Amino acid sequence: VHVSELQTPALVVDPVALDHNLAVMAAARPGARLRPHVKAHKTTALAARQAAAGHHGFTCATIREVEGMAAAGLGTDLLLANEVVDARRLGAVVAGGGRVTLAVDSDATVAAAAAGGVREVVIDVNVGLPRCGCDPADTGRLAERARALGLVVRGVMGYEGHLMLEQPRVDRRANTEACMALLQQAHGQVGGEVVSGGGTGTYDINTWVTELQAGSYVLMDSAYGALDLPFRQALFLEATVISVGSGGWAVADCGLKALGMDHGNPSIDGATVWFCSDEHITFSCDPLPPVGARVRITPAHVDPTVAYHDRMHLLTADGEHVAETWAVDLRGW
Amino acid sequence: VHVSELQTPALVVDPVALDHNLAVMAAARPGARLRPHVKAHKTTALAARQAAAGHHGFTCATIREVEGMAAAGLGTDLLLANEVVDARRLGAVVAGGGRVTLAVDSDATVAAAAAGGVREVVIDVNVGLPRCGCDPADTGRLAERARALGLVVRGVMGYEGHLMLEQPRVDRRANTEACMALLQQAHGQVGGEVVSGGGTGTYDINTWVTELQAGSYVLMDSAYGALDLPFRQALFLEATVISVGSGGWAVADCGLKALGMDHGNPSIDGATVWFCSDEHITFSCDPLPPVGARVRITPAHVDPTVAYHDRMHLLTADGEHVAETWAVDLRGW
Repeated sequence: VHVSELQTPALVVDPVALDHNLAVMAAARPGARLRPHVKAHKTTALAARQAAAGHHGFTCATIREVEGMAAAGLGTDLLLANEVVDARRLGAVVAGGGRVTLAVDSDATVAAAAAGGVREVVIDVNVGLPRCGCDPADTGRLAERARALGLVVRGVMGYEGHLMLEQPRVDRRANTEACMALLQQAHGQVGGEVVSGGGTGTYDINTWVTELQAGSYVLMDSAYGALDLPFRQALFLEATVISVGSGGWAVADCGLKALGMDHGNPSIDGATVWFCSDEHITFSCDPLPPVGARVRITPAHVDPTVAYHDRMHLLTADGEHVAETWAVDLRGW
Repeated sequence: VHVSELQTPALVVDPVALDHNLAVMAAARPGARLRPHVKAHKTTALAARQAAAGHHGFTCATIREVEGMAAAGLGTDLLLANEVVDARRLGAVVAGGGRVTLAVDSDATVAAAAAGGVREVVIDVNVGLPRCGCDPADTGRLAERARALGLVVRGVMGYEGHLMLEQPRVDRRANTEACMALLQQAHGQVGGEVVSGGGTGTYDINTWVTELQAGSYVLMDSAYGALDLPFRQALFLEATVISVGSGGWAVADCGLKALGMDHGNPSIDGATVWFCSDEHITFSCDPLPPVGARVRITPAHVDPTVAYHDRMHLLTADGEHVAETWAVDLRGW
């Protein structure tokens, strides 16, 4: 299939940039030192590429992601880096032969893990982002409680998510060090071999974790693209110009339902994006493209963009044809 | 199924508010004077309720919505209020017995309609929103061109989308009148029985169109809820508290991948929403709910919220149980 024959809007993946990103990260964080986060792409075919690059453990954000990864044969070491109050579906994955480690940060979530048939947990530690994670001072008590319920406590996790896009880099480094000091303090209380955290924005800064939970590095977006990272934009949204306004703008057929908008508007090389509607993007450039022309859009935030699509197309190296079509098969909950 | 047994995040619909919205709109815009826009809900089961309320023509934003409505037996009069450069899938719907009217605003989209097997069009007119629609002065020429290619020109459409959320109402009214003067001028050039436009925000203001393209009225969102409209919030996102932070916040299991974010954060009655992450919403209230509690979230923008979900649950009138589960079956493109 030629790329011009794709029904738009369509997610397309540049294989050269993808392979570059896989190789750069595998060199920086080889093997088990990276636990790729599948929430960024929700695509088992892409996770298989990450496994082929040497990373066999994965991070998940939802029960559905854990189930889908296990069903795809990628369940040798799955970390659900999130709390759940009903772990029975995870227990079923464990009973089916998958290895699932669950984040816990309270008595209630420890109890849910044990009751649901999960056998392994990590203590989730609040390292500064006001989200999940217990107080560092409470981690020893929580680990003890988990062990008393028969759970194996593999270690700790703590995500410095509020620092991922911080500029300049020197501040990102200093603040990451302070966050990771809290995580190490907790690790001293909890024990175990796992210290999990970090992300794309701190991939070469966070030297304190034993495994990095980066996800965005593999496809990238314009928010991460503004940082000082060696990863290249690999994901684009292909759209078709459907209207050219007499006032100096053009309109293509992709909008709010094809793009995560929490980081603002997407971008188009050489053009100014005016705004997005449900199924439209209005932009200007000089000269304006004709009706029927293709435009290539860079999402501002990869994770919620991919979650709108049921497939993505890996292109050939010359960008002309579709080499493989991958189901975005980890969507939903 | 009790609502507490739903896997969260889950879209739930209040049947009392839904019936109220259907009744209020059917009284204000009975029968063919409303052409409900299915993009707001993407759910044929809900469109069937709108048909039962007397509205048998529908507005669509994508080819997929047209195909799905026709397949669900709701294809007696479908308007695709958007331009396409390849109308062959629409031609197939027509060949299968559906009635499809397509918006055109250029020589290229007129040619695409004819080549694709579509038989009926409306001329899409730019009435002030910088998006699709031709210059009002060009409408007569375009209608002539369409007729020369054998197309039936049913009339005109023009969407005053930039005015939908305008406050105060007196400005919304004055500006709508100015926009509709352009549309009436175009109608004079084009002819035909259809003058289509308007939306939820101008449902009782826009007296110039023969049919109103409102969609949001039936489920509503917090953006429209801030206006002076008689429609009630009928759609909520049910989420579960998974973590309660020691710093005075709580976290529930719904985030960027369950909520359209272009209108900003969602809201929770009696609480302050801090921010949304991929799969989390952090909020504060007094007292904080315990882990495991349910919270009910009002989306800021209904259309891109629904597009993230594969189903929605109609509750019983007492809000306790699931009466029906509807597939959000018009997603994708």
